[in-house]
Formats: sequence, C-alpha cells, structure tokens
Amino acid sequence: MIGPRREKLAAALKETQADHALLTSLASLRYFTGYSAGIETGPSPFSPLMGALLWIAGEQPRLFLADMESSESVVPGLEVTTFEGYTVEKPLAAAKDLSAKLLTRLEKLPASRIGIESEDLSAGIFERLRSACPQAAFHDITSSLERLRLVKDDEEIALLREALGLCDLGQELTKKLARRGMTEVELFAEVRKGMEIRAGGRLPLLADLVSGPRTAEIGGPPSSRVIQEGDLIISDLVPRHQGYWGDTCNTCVVGEPTAEQRKIFDGIAAALAEGIDKVHPGMRACDLDADLRKRVLRLGGGYPHHSGHGLGVTWHEEPRIVPYNPLALQPGMVIALEPGIYFKDRFGLRLEHAILVTEKGAEILSKFKHTL
Amino acid sequence: MIGPRREKLAAALKETQADHALLTSLASLRYFTGYSAGIETGPSPFSPLMGALLWIAGEQPRLFLADMESSESVVPGLEVTTFEGYTVEKPLAAAKDLSAKLLTRLEKLPASRIGIESEDLSAGIFERLRSACPQAAFHDITSSLERLRLVKDDEEIALLREALGLCDLGQELTKKLARRGMTEVELFAEVRKGMEIRAGGRLPLLADLVSGPRTAEIGGPPSSRVIQEGDLIISDLVPRHQGYWGDTCNTCVVGEPTAEQRKIFDGIAAALAEGIDKVHPGMRACDLDADLRKRVLRLGGGYPHHSGHGLGVTWHEEPRIVPYNPLALQPGMVIALEPGIYFKDRFGLRLEHAILVTEKGAEILSKFKHTL
Repeated sequence: MIGPRREKLAAALKETQADHALLTSLASLRYFTGYSAGIETGPSPFSPLMGALLWIAGEQPRLFLADMESSESVVPGLEVTTFEGYTVEKPLAAAKDLSAKLLTRLEKLPASRIGIESEDLSAGIFERLRSACPQAAFHDITSSLERLRLVKDDEEIALLREALGLCDLGQELTKKLARRGMTEVELFAEVRKGMEIRAGGRLPLLADLVSGPRTAEIGGPPSSRVIQEGDLIISDLVPRHQGYWGDTCNTCVVGEPTAEQRKIFDGIAAALAEGIDKVHPGMRACDLDADLRKRVLRLGGGYPHHSGHGLGVTWHEEPRIVPYNPLALQPGMVIALEPGIYFKDRFGLRLEHAILVTEKGAEILSKFKHTL
Repeated sequence: MIGPRREKLAAALKETQADHALLTSLASLRYFTGYSAGIETGPSPFSPLMGALLWIAGEQPRLFLADMESSESVVPGLEVTTFEGYTVEKPLAAAKDLSAKLLTRLEKLPASRIGIESEDLSAGIFERLRSACPQAAFHDITSSLERLRLVKDDEEIALLREALGLCDLGQELTKKLARRGMTEVELFAEVRKGMEIRAGGRLPLLADLVSGPRTAEIGGPPSSRVIQEGDLIISDLVPRHQGYWGDTCNTCVVGEPTAEQRKIFDGIAAALAEGIDKVHPGMRACDLDADLRKRVLRLGGGYPHHSGHGLGVTWHEEPRIVPYNPLALQPGMVIALEPGIYFKDRFGLRLEHAILVTEKGAEILSKFKHTL
C-alpha cells in the first residue's frame, strides 16, 4: 500500500514544483514509512525529531531514525540510517548529527527545489541545511501532503476500523462502569485499562471525560469530580493504534434520564442519523455542516464547534466539516461526525460516529450504539 | 519564585549577548510563566506551538497562548495574549497568526540580538520572523537556559517532592499488585490508576514496565506478556505533575527470589546507597558515574546507560551523570540516580532514587524503599 502513496507523493511534488522532499511530521513518517513514534509524553529531551524521510527523485527513499527508536514497523524498500539520539559518551547532539547525515546527500545535489514541512521541522535543523546548501531552495508543501492523504486506501481503512473498534469497547465500558460515587478519573482509568488490554499495550489517548455541569464546557480531561446520580457523562475517546486515530463520542446518564435529557439525546441522535443519511460523494463539507448545525440549533443551546473532521494519521484533518469549507466529499474519506449541544452552566451532550464515504453514501465504521 | 528566575534569565541573556529573547520550549514556558501544556498525545493538529514567551528588555514579558489553552496556572506579571489555534470560521492558521502577533512588537525593535530556542521553534515561524525583521539577529541560547535551570529553587524542590510522592505510590502499587497470570499492561493500568487518582487527574507518564526476559532489554512499555512466577519486573515510573517530572525505578520479583536475584539486587542496592553516600558539592558528575559504574560492573553483566540525570521541567537534563561530564555538583541540584545491570537474554535489574544535593551531601527525595 505504501507504493501507491509514494506515487501520490511524486505527483504532489510535481504539482508544488518541488524536485525532492524532506518530510519530518509524525503524520508523514507514518504514512510513507510505517514508523510510528511513541508520543505519550511530548517532546523528547534526546532529540527534536524522531525521524526524517529524505526523498530524492529517482533514488531509494532514505529514512533517518533516532537510535533509540524502533524500525520494526518500517516498511521494506527504504534505506534506514540511524542518527545519534542518546549517548553517554558525549553531550547530546541529535539535531547536529541528523543535520550532518542529511547534508551528506543534500550538499551534493545540483540546484534544486526541496519540499519541506516547515511547521514540523525545527528552525535549528533548517538553518543548518539552508546555510550549507545555498543551491537548494526550500518551500513548504504541507497543504499538498494533507490533500494527498484525503482519500484513505484499503490498508488505512482497515487500520481505522481497528482503532474504532477500541473506541467501541471504550464506549461500552463507559456506559457499563459509570456509577455515582466514583470520580471521573477512576472511571476513565477503568475504560482506558480495558482498551489497552484489548490493544495489547499503551495507547496514546486523547479523551474528554466530563460529568454533570462540566458537560456544559464541551469537554476536558477527567478530574477528581465525584459522579452524582442523574449526571450526564460525555465520553469522547480518541486513541491512536498502529499510527491511526479512532474517535467516537457518547453521552450517557448515571441512573434514569430526565425527560429533558431524553429529548435532547433523541434530538442529537436524530440529527446525526439524518446527517449521515445525507452524505454522498460530491456533497460539500459546508453543506453537511449546515445540515447538522440547523438540526442541532433547533433544539436550543449552543453549538460552538465543528460538525466533524477527517481521521487518519492525525486526529483532526481534512475534510473539516465546518461552515467555510467548500471541499467536496469523495469515496474513501473517513470522517468523524459529532453534533453536540451545550446549555451554559447546565449541561451538554454530544454524539459521534466515524463514517466512510462510499460511492452510494456512507458506511458507519464505529459499531457501538449511542445509549443515553 | 518566578521573579528570581527572570533575573537569572536577564543574566543569561547578557552572557550570551542577547538583548531580548523569544522562548518556545515547553520547559521554558513552564519555568518562566507557569504554563504547562497537555502533551499526552504529541503534536497538535491545531498549532505547532502552544505558546511563546516574548521577553523584551525593560518591558513586561508577553506570553502568547493558543486560544484553546488554559492560562489558569500562568503566574501574575505577564501580559497574556491569545492567538488563534482553533476556529470553525476559516482554515486553521495558528503559525501564521502567532507569527503576526509576535511581529507587531518585533518589527518595531531597533537593530537587536534575540535569543531563541532553535530546536523548539518551527522553521516556518522562524522564517516569517526572520524575513520580516532584517534588523534582528537571532541566535540559539538553549544551553544557557539549561544551565540557568541547574539549581532548583524551593518551589521547584517542593513540586519535585510531590511528583516523587506519586512515584512512591506507583512503586508500592507495583510491588503489591504484581502477580502471575496478569499481563504487564494490566499491572501498569492498575499502577497508573492509583497514581492518577492520587493526582486528581491524568498524568503524562513515561514508564518502563517489563517482566521476565524483557528486563534484559533495559526497559520498554508494558506489553501483553503474561507475568510468570519468579519473573523480575522493572518498574521505572516518570510522571509529570504540575509541570515537574518525578522518576524512580524498582525491580521486584513475583514470588520468591532466587539466590542469584537476591545477590544482584543486594549488589545494586549497595552500589546505589554507597553512591548516594559519596555525593557532595563539588564532586564531578563523571566521578559519581565512575564510582557507580565500577560497583555495578563488579557484579558482571552490562551497564549500557547513564548513572543518572537531572530532573525538573524535563525528565532528563543536566547534571547528566555520565563518563564524559566534568560538571561539579552543587547544592540544589535534583538528580535521579539509577544503577542497573543487564544479562543478555536472561534478566536485568535497576534501582533508582531521586536525590537533592545539599551542603552536607545528599537528601533522598523519593521515600519508598526498594524491595525485591
């Protein structure tokens, strides 16, 4: 599957008038090489970059990986070189070593134009490359790369199904385990535990888990708030599995729902179902947003966020289902749709499914059933 | 406490011949402003930077924060401006908006030299600033900033004690809960749950949790391996709490230790205790490393890593306790010492305490007792 992606990259470079590319975002590394970074705790003190893909036209692509990183998941057909990320023999100097290794090839290039991801490359490494390669002109190709990833291939769809399967489990567990007297963080720990046991390891996991009046604030991490009888719980679970992000949301109630909670839940569930029914190739993202937004706003309350977004090697990408976006939906796009409604200082409620745009309409990839 | 840190910054700028500074690392943002990013899942699709601190000599420091970030923990005495990180009204353009906001002040500066953190600033933002401000010369001041943070102030030591208290709890739980038949990931989930309930929220948590033959590989994330009777378990827990990182390690056995396991454990425990006893102001980091290394290597096996490292707003910083490092220890440094030994394909064992260098020697900040 990586072969056709590289053909798409070659086409994107042509379109942006780049001869070669230096790709450094985690998204691109996953998409073009298979490498997935462990990013649970943020920037590493050992290296500003975990890897870099140097793509010189007509040559085998070169992946540079920090020496503490695993190349286990890297696909065949790449030349893999390590650079020094961790050492006890001398001061840490990963950026310097990576730059030097990149320069052994870049310096020898004739005058050429090189596409980069300028927000995912450090100023330090960039300045080293730029000053050593006056014959090279660097320009940003991020938006072309994002467009290139818009339509998912079969391998990606299979991986997204797996990540969404973890979300399904997480939603089942949230509904099953939530009870009054436990804190949000306790509930979250149990839900994540179940998901990680199923995945067989730790999951980078972005999550809103808020209860009671906190649901009015749209989202937030689990806190030490004690869950009360009658509370709504918004559970929005976004795990990364094998480099691909799942994303679904449910809102459930602890105990018996009130008539108002039931009415709002049913209204949002209907908006989501009817929005999904409308999806078809050629529909503009802004029209899908408008349809969902209109149905939600009829229920009263506020709706201060997107109606949806693409999923893939990032957890928020095109097609953004937002008011300004004229982008036409295409078969193969995977979109998380998440209408939600928020009543200031009282409560909020959000429901989310991930769908695949098909020739005929949409297939719902997340299999759990939203249950108040 | 932030006041004296800013005086240190002014001195560091003088030393590096910078007139002003633009600080963008998470470490600097925490240290100088109190802001702590939620970095559980890696780079944000919304913005390459969550914040930037613009320090113009003689003016109130300006903190620029992405609009989805909380300024709750930001200390007084800063001008806080938000930039657009998330919007549904137009395409995402955080880097552009942040650059524009920085430029409203930078463009008006006379010829000046500006200290930056070049590995924690994107090439894209840097190029925008550089091209719009030909009168400004930017240079990297990262190593000065690292030196400035070497000695911890009282507030930092109190925060490190809190983070290490979470580690203490985690080590107690690992020892108490580990039993044959459970997987590493199950054990880890229970340990983390206890730590997060104590902390009242999610913790960015770097952790080695390996059992049985995996201990020979030094570390690694918890896997689906089923723990067996007689297994060693290396539990190295590195949580971030209120922006500061704790770090301790224990190795315990499931069931009764063998004579060999006991002997190696006692040897490493003695090496650690004797190493800590030797610590005093003026001792060189390399001499502390040599002392620990000699004691460990007497036990046979390999020792392919550092003997320790500083702790603070990052989880690995100076003083690095490594063979090349002549840096003299000073009162107020906080150091994680972690002698370990590894027998290829058989097993490994590592013990770690965090200490505070004092006028008289060292105080052990982590309170749990290493227990096989």
